[in-house]
Amino acid sequence: MNDEALAPLPQPPYYAVVFSSRRTAVGDAEYGEAAERMAALAQQQPGFLGIESVRGADGFGITVSYWESEEAVRAWRRHAEHTLIRERGRSEWYERYALRVARVERAYGWEAADAP
Amino acid sequence: MNDEALAPLPQPPYYAVVFSSRRTAVGDAEYGEAAERMAALAQQQPGFLGIESVRGADGFGITVSYWESEEAVRAWRRHAEHTLIRERGRSEWYERYALRVARVERAYGWEAADAP
Repeated sequence: MNDEALAPLPQPPYYAVVFSSRRTAVGDAEYGEAAERMAALAQQQPGFLGIESVRGADGFGITVSYWESEEAVRAWRRHAEHTLIRERGRSEWYERYALRVARVERAYGWEAADAP
Repeated sequence: MNDEALAPLPQPPYYAVVFSSRRTAVGDAEYGEAAERMAALAQQQPGFLGIESVRGADGFGITVSYWESEEAVRAWRRHAEHTLIRERGRSEWYERYALRVARVERAYGWEAADAP
């Protein structure tokens, strides 16, 4: 599946963190930089498997990150720079968000025979 | 959390189906109609809890639907109209997709004190 937007599909079980959020109307440039930095930093963490992220023009977005274990999820949550940026997200960039930690039990991929 | 884009946050455990997809460049109008119909139909199924969905301008999108139980997930998968539209999605609307069924173990919500 040669499409960078789609994360790899390892054999379950593994963990997914679903982060659904509504952006405020401010700070687009700084938010964009911080989001890129967090994605790059996440990829360096032990147990990171992949990330998928999309935000619509209306400010609603979903980011799903995938991890080998619950311990890897917890370690990323406690990461110092991630913790700092989360505080900033709450004070500036997000109106609201929901976060769900889930254990992936089954996974399937499909692609068109003529997919690029 | 009065924001229709964000699904309710019931007490875990429950199930999440993460559907990540890359659209083809064709059939926007019909795809949009079918996607709305599927979201409306899903909401009528036993065990449906909520749905969150976003697609970016580049054609990559994530839809997460939430269900009370794995049996509710399976029943929706087997639903006749859903099965038909899935075939059409494969032949016309999607270049590729990944689907993950996951058991939500922890969930948190946050909103700004001055959120609208």
